[in-house]
Amino acid sequence: MTHSIAILGASGYTGAELVRLIATHPGLSITAMTGERKAGQPMASVFPFLRHLDLPDLCRIDEVNFSAVDLAFCALPHGTSASVIKDLPHDLKIVDLSADFRLKDPAVYKRWYGKDHEAPEMLGSAVYGLTEFYREEIRATRFVAGTGCNAATGQYAVRPLLSAGLIDPDEIVINLITGVSGAGRSLKENLLHAELSEGANAYAIGGTHRHLGEFDQEFSAIVGRKVEVQFTPHLAPMNRGILATVYVRGDAQAIHAEFERVYAEEPFIEVLPFGQAPSTHDVRGSNFVHVGVAADRREGRAQVFATLDNLTKGSSGQALQNANLMLGLPETEGLMLAPLFP
Amino acid sequence: MTHSIAILGASGYTGAELVRLIATHPGLSITAMTGERKAGQPMASVFPFLRHLDLPDLCRIDEVNFSAVDLAFCALPHGTSASVIKDLPHDLKIVDLSADFRLKDPAVYKRWYGKDHEAPEMLGSAVYGLTEFYREEIRATRFVAGTGCNAATGQYAVRPLLSAGLIDPDEIVINLITGVSGAGRSLKENLLHAELSEGANAYAIGGTHRHLGEFDQEFSAIVGRKVEVQFTPHLAPMNRGILATVYVRGDAQAIHAEFERVYAEEPFIEVLPFGQAPSTHDVRGSNFVHVGVAADRREGRAQVFATLDNLTKGSSGQALQNANLMLGLPETEGLMLAPLFP
Amino acid sequence: MTHSIAILGASGYTGAELVRLIATHPGLSITAMTGERKAGQPMASVFPFLRHLDLPDLCRIDEVNFSAVDLAFCALPHGTSASVIKDLPHDLKIVDLSADFRLKDPAVYKRWYGKDHEAPEMLGSAVYGLTEFYREEIRATRFVAGTGCNAATGQYAVRPLLSAGLIDPDEIVINLITGVSGAGRSLKENLLHAELSEGANAYAIGGTHRHLGEFDQEFSAIVGRKVEVQFTPHLAPMNRGILATVYVRGDAQAIHAEFERVYAEEPFIEVLPFGQAPSTHDVRGSNFVHVGVAADRREGRAQVFATLDNLTKGSSGQALQNANLMLGLPETEGLMLAPLFP
Amino acid sequence: MTHSIAILGASGYTGAELVRLIATHPGLSITAMTGERKAGQPMASVFPFLRHLDLPDLCRIDEVNFSAVDLAFCALPHGTSASVIKDLPHDLKIVDLSADFRLKDPAVYKRWYGKDHEAPEMLGSAVYGLTEFYREEIRATRFVAGTGCNAATGQYAVRPLLSAGLIDPDEIVINLITGVSGAGRSLKENLLHAELSEGANAYAIGGTHRHLGEFDQEFSAIVGRKVEVQFTPHLAPMNRGILATVYVRGDAQAIHAEFERVYAEEPFIEVLPFGQAPSTHDVRGSNFVHVGVAADRREGRAQVFATLDNLTKGSSGQALQNANLMLGLPETEGLMLAPLFP
Repeated sequence: MTHSIAILGASGYTGAELVRLIATHPGLSITAMTGERKAGQPMASVFPFLRHLDLPDLCRIDEVNFSAVDLAFCALPHGTSASVIKDLPHDLKIVDLSADFRLKDPAVYKRWYGKDHEAPEMLGSAVYGLTEFYREEIRATRFVAGTGCNAATGQYAVRPLLSAGLIDPDEIVINLITGVSGAGRSLKENLLHAELSEGANAYAIGGTHRHLGEFDQEFSAIVGRKVEVQFTPHLAPMNRGILATVYVRGDAQAIHAEFERVYAEEPFIEVLPFGQAPSTHDVRGSNFVHVGVAADRREGRAQVFATLDNLTKGSSGQALQNANLMLGLPETEGLMLAPLFP
Repeated sequence: MTHSIAILGASGYTGAELVRLIATHPGLSITAMTGERKAGQPMASVFPFLRHLDLPDLCRIDEVNFSAVDLAFCALPHGTSASVIKDLPHDLKIVDLSADFRLKDPAVYKRWYGKDHEAPEMLGSAVYGLTEFYREEIRATRFVAGTGCNAATGQYAVRPLLSAGLIDPDEIVINLITGVSGAGRSLKENLLHAELSEGANAYAIGGTHRHLGEFDQEFSAIVGRKVEVQFTPHLAPMNRGILATVYVRGDAQAIHAEFERVYAEEPFIEVLPFGQAPSTHDVRGSNFVHVGVAADRREGRAQVFATLDNLTKGSSGQALQNANLMLGLPETEGLMLAPLFP
Repeated sequence: MTHSIAILGASGYTGAELVRLIATHPGLSITAMTGERKAGQPMASVFPFLRHLDLPDLCRIDEVNFSAVDLAFCALPHGTSASVIKDLPHDLKIVDLSADFRLKDPAVYKRWYGKDHEAPEMLGSAVYGLTEFYREEIRATRFVAGTGCNAATGQYAVRPLLSAGLIDPDEIVINLITGVSGAGRSLKENLLHAELSEGANAYAIGGTHRHLGEFDQEFSAIVGRKVEVQFTPHLAPMNRGILATVYVRGDAQAIHAEFERVYAEEPFIEVLPFGQAPSTHDVRGSNFVHVGVAADRREGRAQVFATLDNLTKGSSGQALQNANLMLGLPETEGLMLAPLFP
Repeated sequence: MTHSIAILGASGYTGAELVRLIATHPGLSITAMTGERKAGQPMASVFPFLRHLDLPDLCRIDEVNFSAVDLAFCALPHGTSASVIKDLPHDLKIVDLSADFRLKDPAVYKRWYGKDHEAPEMLGSAVYGLTEFYREEIRATRFVAGTGCNAATGQYAVRPLLSAGLIDPDEIVINLITGVSGAGRSLKENLLHAELSEGANAYAIGGTHRHLGEFDQEFSAIVGRKVEVQFTPHLAPMNRGILATVYVRGDAQAIHAEFERVYAEEPFIEVLPFGQAPSTHDVRGSNFVHVGVAADRREGRAQVFATLDNLTKGSSGQALQNANLMLGLPETEGLMLAPLFP
């Protein structure tokens, strides 16, 4: 028996990535895919790389028969997602990939996203989708809010250290390099090949990136008081991949040992030998996270590195991992694809 | 029950690609992997992207217990392969990925590879590994010689047309754009990022590329007389992917109809709607081939396009497809991974 | 004394390239730059790479005092250009970089561009801007129509051979790989980094690319009868550069000798030793053209290769070269910049 | 009158970049270029992009007639450079691009480069080549040691702030993204296109990069006590360009004001408006440095950004700027080329 899946917003990169992953998942069957502006089109005309699959044509959301759907992935744009989800059947299992339900506090949402939330009454019911740290809540819920891809990367490098009290919460610098697919299939000048290839730049500088809302929420909750990290993302000419280089104060060996302990049983998290740095190349297209630790030459300081594929572990792979839990399937089903290298 | 697999030459790109594919293949188990210069090292130190897998360490070929091996993939360099294979047990199933057994005639081999063949007596026993055209021979043999990646791409675009007599065999121009991984993990100046990125160039110009040996052998056999195509490969800054643009004389509509007929039941070959051109982006990391046809503005002339991933369908994916047949497994097992896009 | 220059349409890539080149040109001074939607903005906010230059802010075309302008480069979009140029002062020197005045016949224009020409009465007065072949006409005119960048590349490889009767005009296949900046700074999905990087595809297949209008016009004029080449452009992940691989029927040695003869005194055209293929890498950012010739293994057939930078020699560099001639300046002034490698 | 220039080590990237820059320099003439392994070859065969230039063939160093040379650029590998320079005529003007004479203390040299210095007696006589901060010393010397490219980038972001006492010297984190040409034309696996494109990684982690020697030397000298920054370089898939993102403690507005004051008259340093981040794209191929400043959301913390082209301002452009000073030429001669974009 397979579970019936709907993908709302299948015409973007995260929607297509969900299809890619589900293509070889034995327990799931895609019965509806939506794309408002491309309704009526076959997926092969929107994403020719999926041409070999037998998929339903794109339709409008109001054409979906949700009573026949076991779980819906919501891969809609930020803002749109909340207004759609609030009207979905209240017993439908939902994994949202947008930013709309990540933040618990409507005021915090408004601060980072610049507008009132469309469904503030639902904020409390969404489980934050960072699987390794909310596994049991996810297993028990019908509604998961996927994390930001940058936010996920940083958290894999920082959360266990805060929980174990191994680093100074006030001295965390998260420097991050990200690929371009995180910005979606959107027509912006700075995403053009001619503008992006062969160069790099920082963006959302000075602590203005929206994923800081997630860092603040999560890190403060762990420590039990307000924690504000420094965070600078950079755009590099690569399609997939995020690398977080995190400067922390603490003992590097203890940090490494803690990662090895905490992540020992995690199927998707690989802790590198002490002193090795991971590369985005080595996780591309996969649900894996590679974590590394190095001691700085200055005593009491260390660097932690975490890398993942923003479209897989940072978004659609995470969503599928969570869906597996929600549906009572093996957590790793459909997700053990090896990275693509080179 | 799983079949026991050895990968000879696992420290190169095609070897690593085999591991990537076999990682999620339910019927195969890798029991030995060799790398002469890296013997004793774990695969994770040679290819960190495979870190999550439980693999045997690299060893020397003479350390492999072949009596416990059901099938060996031979991903060794050209020349080395023949000298190794000739000493392997004569009942071992072998899929060779090198160029050593593609050409049937030792004199032709010497012309294109510049030296005498190491095991000319074995040339006749190898089945040419272009699965769709040698399927039954492959199923019945214990020894398959994988095709050249460029040679495979061109043949998908040309073979059915020659067989059906739809094009003039003397007026075929195969223009080809290829990614860089086809050259392997070799330290050559022109393969450096700084030399290759952001530019393109032709190479092996004037009909000097070795894969012409395969084109000649195969196309001449189909037509029943000597056929010599024109062929110019170009290197573009991409890691995976080959695109053949083939200029032919014939009726474009008839050509397209023939492709649809011939490839209708093929699990890995997608024929695009008439007038559409395929993109290497849409097959990356997969075993699929996309074929397209367009009529030229000049009557009686057409262009045929074929694209595949050189490391997958052009090499290791093809090898696995053939191994599946040789082992009595479903032909598509482990190979239905969707392409990676973007 | 410097000449006063206006750049109409300075907010696109060809406009910015003109600024880049003129920046170190001792005889020209930019006194007006237009950009309708960005009027009032400093160039540094549109193109930060030009930040170091002391440039006028962008303005609207109707704000330009053309009486103080010696020569205007018109780098406006196709279609817009004609409607602007027809209203410019009739004694103003103009170098148009658009497609609007390349074709002499309004019917041919309509066929390729799909609409009636905005200023058909001016078609006859524009000199086709392929400097090496129209040098004296350019020197004498006040109005030059720049060539298509693909069209220029193909012509450098073919024109001398048709003029000398060295090749069969009916058997010319121009296969071309082009970089993405030729499509301009336009927001199209296929120009996004995520869609374009790491892959290649043909476009405008089957003889539908607009630059065929130029090939037809020019080649037919040389031969004295209708000549229709085959032409397939491919998009590769590089920002600058075009490589034409041209399949011809003729004697390769004679072809090479003719190139050496014809281009011997040309300051920007380098003929490579026989049998060598040029690379787009080696002309990037420069006004140079590299031409190569190889004999095919089939007698009487040859390949000719030509490469140039589409934004420089294929567009803005060509325009400046022509402007130099029109203003009585040394033809190479401001254009001897070496290519940028790597 | 032109000055006669020798380029020792012209077969590498920095040597070729020197040729590119000198190509349009009116006051310099290249009379000798060396390349030990490629002696006898024309430069066009080593770097075809320089084909259009009339250059001497490569020769061995012992073939150079230094009595006819006014200034030698030494672009040899680290280690080799010192052993060559110590035997050059003692009155020859020399600009060394290697690491051999950057560090003043032989013990510090040994710590970072792992061996005894070949010419320790010369360490004191070399002027550190960061032009803007050693201009008068450079003008007066005959021997300049070019800086590390990463070291230069970081210093443009940090030096004025330390001099003005605007930041805490003990809390400086220099995070850096660099292009691949900084590693030279060397055959290393991690520099292959297939290994590098489409991904990023940190290297020399934990404070082990050799350029830390320069940071320590220079920053400690400014502050008057030992200063040790944290520094993590990252490799991104781009050929040229370095971006330093520096986390500092201080007042962002004061920092920005100081940069505007200090760099006001510098011909090659552009300070961006407050709150803007520079991009490597905007300095590619040029001698310009773009500097930006942003306030962090946490009071008293700021980020400083500096970007330059490692081969130009970070190496060969800096060298030429210094040579201009040493020869009494205008400092900007041959260096006002605009960046290449896109």
